Amino acid sequence: MEQKGDKSLQKLSGLRREHKGLINLMPLQTGGILTDAAREVLLEFGDGYSVCDFCQGVLCNITNPPIRDFVQELLPRFLGSDVATITHGAREAKFMVMHSLAKPGDAILVDGNRHYTTFVAAERVGLNIIEVPHSGHPEFRVDVNEYTALIKQHAPKLILLTYPDGNYGNLPDAKRLAEIAQEHSVPYILNGAYAVGRMPISMEEIGADFIVGSGHKSMAAAGPVGVLGMKKKWEPIVLRKSQRHGNKDIELLGCTVRGVPLMTLMASFSNVKERVQHWDEQVSKTQWFSGELEKIGFAQLGEKPHRHDLLHFDAPGLYEISKRVRERGYFLYKELKERGIWGPQPGLARSFKLSTFAADRQQLEFVIDSFKAILNKYA
Amino acid sequence: MEQKGDKSLQKLSGLRREHKGLINLMPLQTGGILTDAAREVLLEFGDGYSVCDFCQGVLCNITNPPIRDFVQELLPRFLGSDVATITHGAREAKFMVMHSLAKPGDAILVDGNRHYTTFVAAERVGLNIIEVPHSGHPEFRVDVNEYTALIKQHAPKLILLTYPDGNYGNLPDAKRLAEIAQEHSVPYILNGAYAVGRMPISMEEIGADFIVGSGHKSMAAAGPVGVLGMKKKWEPIVLRKSQRHGNKDIELLGCTVRGVPLMTLMASFSNVKERVQHWDEQVSKTQWFSGELEKIGFAQLGEKPHRHDLLHFDAPGLYEISKRVRERGYFLYKELKERGIWGPQPGLARSFKLSTFAADRQQLEFVIDSFKAILNKYA
Repeated sequence: MEQKGDKSLQKLSGLRREHKGLINLMPLQTGGILTDAAREVLLEFGDGYSVCDFCQGVLCNITNPPIRDFVQELLPRFLGSDVATITHGAREAKFMVMHSLAKPGDAILVDGNRHYTTFVAAERVGLNIIEVPHSGHPEFRVDVNEYTALIKQHAPKLILLTYPDGNYGNLPDAKRLAEIAQEHSVPYILNGAYAVGRMPISMEEIGADFIVGSGHKSMAAAGPVGVLGMKKKWEPIVLRKSQRHGNKDIELLGCTVRGVPLMTLMASFSNVKERVQHWDEQVSKTQWFSGELEKIGFAQLGEKPHRHDLLHFDAPGLYEISKRVRERGYFLYKELKERGIWGPQPGLARSFKLSTFAADRQQLEFVIDSFKAILNKYA
Repeated sequence: MEQKGDKSLQKLSGLRREHKGLINLMPLQTGGILTDAAREVLLEFGDGYSVCDFCQGVLCNITNPPIRDFVQELLPRFLGSDVATITHGAREAKFMVMHSLAKPGDAILVDGNRHYTTFVAAERVGLNIIEVPHSGHPEFRVDVNEYTALIKQHAPKLILLTYPDGNYGNLPDAKRLAEIAQEHSVPYILNGAYAVGRMPISMEEIGADFIVGSGHKSMAAAGPVGVLGMKKKWEPIVLRKSQRHGNKDIELLGCTVRGVPLMTLMASFSNVKERVQHWDEQVSKTQWFSGELEKIGFAQLGEKPHRHDLLHFDAPGLYEISKRVRERGYFLYKELKERGIWGPQPGLARSFKLSTFAADRQQLEFVIDSFKAILNKYA
């Protein structure tokens, strides 16, 4: 027993990340690669509670470092919301909205492409979860008009749309859903974990009540950190204060990201604000990359032409190989890693996700050539 | 408006921490100063979701980096618990236990020295919060025997003890409370945010049902991250899984600290495990320091002789000065900072908290001399 413990303890020395420096196509990671400015604040604010040097009781009111300006001015403007706050991540933001607006047994209506955390957050509140189905293989589209009948049937306390979803990178008609939400007076959460920080998006323009974003997924921040924007009318409900400790937000348990992930979010913000302006270049890069992979026999799932860097491919050629090699599906991970590429989840070869967000065209050319070479090697 | 935004944006460039490198006596921070190993992993695992490279669906099961060994072997042994998990912090751990074991309207019994987040977490669940009073100025002692009558009166679903509390550093009789809890079959949460990682502590030896710790407060980790240990019998309740997503913990929303704060906790762990063995040296250092400050007219609040590095002083001499200087209470912060010392919250001079945990005796000699010099300067 003690020997096993010693061995476990030894493993904690010299912790290293194998994939550092590789061409990164991992959808969870491409939007969360730090900027140089963010890397600098890691050391500056790494120590424990060092962001709280000048705290007067509320994280979001701290002026040094300038958290107050960031949360109260820059973030709402960026999100197109009246009010914003910071959270431990997108899932925690969804939970706090659900927990504030609905009670156990209430219904919530979500899209069939929702992230698993949407389901689990609703489950944590005890909600009855109704899903609006997607169209199935190969496009997996969500038609938001289908929310109407289900709203009439279930009278949900909340509706949620994933924009885009994390499996196929589909962008459903979020604006149309806002009209439906308003018509039926149902508060509307837009889960933009893969949108906020990658592409231009405005809660106000879309007409949602809440917008959720993820720092580590899409805002060049260390994990975990998220953002939540909302209409003014929801502030007294979601950001309600403690009866006894009048300046403390109940749903935030006082303060949420009281540490360095927040500082990386702030340090990267100028860059992130700028990069969303170049979204059209990202989309054309994605479409070109997807087209090239289709030429070698991969089949892109989800909407076409694709409007987001998150791609999902069926790759029958790679699947055939995986069936006859010793490493099974892991051969793809190994082959790509040897070429300095990190993307598909280790073990997957038949169907996998890739994101083109962090790689430039030259790197993607190399990725395409690498896939060709792998197919040839095992032909 | 746009000008104001530009100015706010400019403030985000070159974010710097004023107090870096000073002698640190700030109670929130002395146990959270990173080890060198933790500083290294900041850069290694800083990028977004980089701890999740080899995730198979559950953060606490990841073997590379060795999160599984850390959470499933090392942490329970360190906490003296059957089972452990990681959380966003101590407050989030308290909330998840309360949310799992109690329903709105249920009662919870807590000590009068509880942290504000104990109150807010209970409020978030909708609990009826009953407080066991402390003895008031100057000792603020909690007599755990007073829980008995209140348990009989209110039939709480949970009891909680803060060990030590963050205001006075008092260590109430946690073992005696375990006997009371067992006698009345009430689950018992021990909030060890200032204990776990500083001093030897074992949930099992004390006899509590849950133990809560804070990485950024007491385990040399970047904020925010916490730990939660529990008896085996509570695992199916607190760590219950999603009905639909069978490997996901509902109370953790799948995964909690999915980022670099966890890596700093792991990197510092060997050091933290070692340092708690030297707690007696910490306590004698504290007692000596407190005695020296009492010689110059400060009055130490809380238990005497003191058994924890967290100290609270009334300082009538400094208060007198603050009443007649332009900077009011801020004069103390300014005077100490000029001498390279960071401790009392800016603005406080009459009564303030200090922690001796991170400073050595030589540094503390300098702190004592500095207080003397400040008193003399304004005499």
